[in-house]
Amino acid sequence: MNVVEIIRKKRNNNELHQEEIIYLINEFCNNNIPDYQMSAFLMSVYFQGMTTTERFNLTSAYINSGQKIDLSFLNGIKIDKHSTGGVGDKVSLILGPLVASCGLYIPMISGRGLGFTGGTLDKLESIPNFRTDLSIAEFKKILSTTGIAMMGQSAEIVPADKRIYALRDVTATVESLPLIVASIMSKKIAEGIDSLLLDIKYGNGAIMQEYSKAVELANALIEVGTRYDKKVIALITSMEQPLGNMIGNWLEVVESVLCLKGKQVPDLLEVTFRESAEMFLLAGKVNSISEGIDLCKKQIQNGSAYNKFLEMVKAQGGDVSMINDLSQYPKSKYTFPVTSLQGGFITSINTREVGIISNEAGAGRGNLTDVIDPKAGIILSKKVGEKVKKGEFIATLFTDKNNPQLATNLQKTFSIGAEKINLQPLIRAKVTISGVEELTIS
Amino acid sequence: MNVVEIIRKKRNNNELHQEEIIYLINEFCNNNIPDYQMSAFLMSVYFQGMTTTERFNLTSAYINSGQKIDLSFLNGIKIDKHSTGGVGDKVSLILGPLVASCGLYIPMISGRGLGFTGGTLDKLESIPNFRTDLSIAEFKKILSTTGIAMMGQSAEIVPADKRIYALRDVTATVESLPLIVASIMSKKIAEGIDSLLLDIKYGNGAIMQEYSKAVELANALIEVGTRYDKKVIALITSMEQPLGNMIGNWLEVVESVLCLKGKQVPDLLEVTFRESAEMFLLAGKVNSISEGIDLCKKQIQNGSAYNKFLEMVKAQGGDVSMINDLSQYPKSKYTFPVTSLQGGFITSINTREVGIISNEAGAGRGNLTDVIDPKAGIILSKKVGEKVKKGEFIATLFTDKNNPQLATNLQKTFSIGAEKINLQPLIRAKVTISGVEELTIS
Repeated sequence: MNVVEIIRKKRNNNELHQEEIIYLINEFCNNNIPDYQMSAFLMSVYFQGMTTTERFNLTSAYINSGQKIDLSFLNGIKIDKHSTGGVGDKVSLILGPLVASCGLYIPMISGRGLGFTGGTLDKLESIPNFRTDLSIAEFKKILSTTGIAMMGQSAEIVPADKRIYALRDVTATVESLPLIVASIMSKKIAEGIDSLLLDIKYGNGAIMQEYSKAVELANALIEVGTRYDKKVIALITSMEQPLGNMIGNWLEVVESVLCLKGKQVPDLLEVTFRESAEMFLLAGKVNSISEGIDLCKKQIQNGSAYNKFLEMVKAQGGDVSMINDLSQYPKSKYTFPVTSLQGGFITSINTREVGIISNEAGAGRGNLTDVIDPKAGIILSKKVGEKVKKGEFIATLFTDKNNPQLATNLQKTFSIGAEKINLQPLIRAKVTISGVEELTIS
Repeated sequence: MNVVEIIRKKRNNNELHQEEIIYLINEFCNNNIPDYQMSAFLMSVYFQGMTTTERFNLTSAYINSGQKIDLSFLNGIKIDKHSTGGVGDKVSLILGPLVASCGLYIPMISGRGLGFTGGTLDKLESIPNFRTDLSIAEFKKILSTTGIAMMGQSAEIVPADKRIYALRDVTATVESLPLIVASIMSKKIAEGIDSLLLDIKYGNGAIMQEYSKAVELANALIEVGTRYDKKVIALITSMEQPLGNMIGNWLEVVESVLCLKGKQVPDLLEVTFRESAEMFLLAGKVNSISEGIDLCKKQIQNGSAYNKFLEMVKAQGGDVSMINDLSQYPKSKYTFPVTSLQGGFITSINTREVGIISNEAGAGRGNLTDVIDPKAGIILSKKVGEKVKKGEFIATLFTDKNNPQLATNLQKTFSIGAEKINLQPLIRAKVTISGVEELTIS
């Protein structure tokens, strides 16, 4: 087989055979195909896309580049949740322990922050000593005893994706549906789940800006999962403003802990409870969404969800005392208050820009080798739809950088108008193998 | 400047600034941009194309990656010819000495064979001891004394193209108009010419299969040349069957020598004389094409063209005795005769396939490190339009490989029909900065 002919075939929009895709991925992983040919191939895929069969074969080739985690020894439902990511999206940190506290197994392989969105791994690692670099053996042990384990991708699991993702990031080929599908689904299939709940974000603060593109991605992900005999459903949720009020790695752990202890953060909990309820339903744990949401509330009220979080932190080496007393955590050198430039109603927040400013404050990376400042981030005091007076506090920026410009930039992300606007529904649609169901405002 | 942003900009079909193109090419040549980013960029260019201004800026960046040859010390017109290549296209070997014999300077930087077409350098190097790896100083010296010099691209001249061409070849990005334009024109501008005659081939045996694509390429090349104040015109010529009767490196030298000594090979000489005449006209040497063609015939009849060829061979170290007695040349181990499968008229020859078979016989390379067998090739006894009887010789294949299948394959490239077909005009159109002029059958 000839790699140039494979690139040319995809470039000319012809469907690749399974053998060609296997050859390409295997020989790349064996260092017999150089990066420069893979990047030309990836750019061809960006332009020409892939058929359903090609996407399935690419996902399979990714999976077979490493080990699959066999969780058949666990007597129970293995279920996971994956979000395409957004600003302030810390749902996994609450949902994971909450769902696990009801006896479902959550084997979660997560990613790091890139671009303007954060990553679950970086958030967890803001907890002192928390380890995400588990071996498969450790992962299985923690999962079996705790019911939940959260780890990063290793050289053992889907190494093809690890290498190709790094290459996509530096060759402007991240935003490609088939490549996103193979990247997400390979890790999820390899982690040994029975079912998967996908949270596909759309809007200004998401990778997919348009609703229709989010639905397209959801369908593609569900198709691949279904061919692997997994139960996969997706919620399409809006990312028109940051989720919750806190953005930044430790700050998102703080907000998650507060929610697990009973704090009401309406938009964050709306998404978390709905997604948890969908997972309960998928697993046959409840008979309706409302029953599932009631279960969520109960697990928070009785302390089970929070205790499960502590159990997970402890099992993965994290400093539990820091969670029990959040005030001990080191503080940022600078705290910049941000006030409203005028009175009125907040009509929008440029969410992508908020994510970029948070990263510039230290919460994110410019490239994969940058070091994150876990303390850095933003707390929003006001959100879209709320009334503000001129000069009223609307946000606070935390950073070790003496850069007041960041606060000025943050101020500009808020648009103020004379009239209160009605927000789009946060949870817009549910996608299953049977089709798309648009949801009414909850 | 950020290379990922430059790739993304081109990927998103936005015009690149001059500074971005310069940055990309310079940093690539300085090894600060890796091959994998360049190949992703090249594939983006393949899909999105480039504007006229971008093509000019890319060509300039290529030129500035190396030295320009300054030929201002030569008191006369410096003119060159470039063909996009075809099977059996040995026009440069005849035209170069012919035009130089009339007092014009021909500074020719040529390429090697790749794909199914041959390369002038490989043909010249089939002459024992002929050197094409001249330094700029040697090139200028030979040009000033002989009036013609033919060399390959070196590390001194347009190194950017040398590296990028090698990368294009292994990433399926050869067939891209802006990349072809920058590659051709950078070398031609750098070699110090005043005027340029382009031969843009189209048809089954050419890189550009469609006439309209050939015209598009001609216009793009002329645009860039004109912005450099060069007089550039193009002929669009058909490559629906091999040019002349001989294909293969030494065989093409042989056919060229025979033509320079007066042999009549109608299609080959039609193209050669017309192109030479166009060059005479461009240089102000004649007042009409017919006058130019008469001059060609005269220079062959009086021996001047052939003598100039011998002079060039000698100046570049080649074995002149081998040219003077062509029969001394080593012979291939195997000579496979090819006969017609049926009687009738030859209606077509699959020219691309003939080129591939010739290369497989030893005349070409699979990759840049393969070694060529200069003796290998094909002689066609019959061409399109000619009458054949069943079992009559139509071609001969020369190779050191004991592979009779090649002859069987060659046999299949001939299509025989009951009726004689009329050929398309060989020289289809002339393109200048003013427009396209379709030519009538000459």
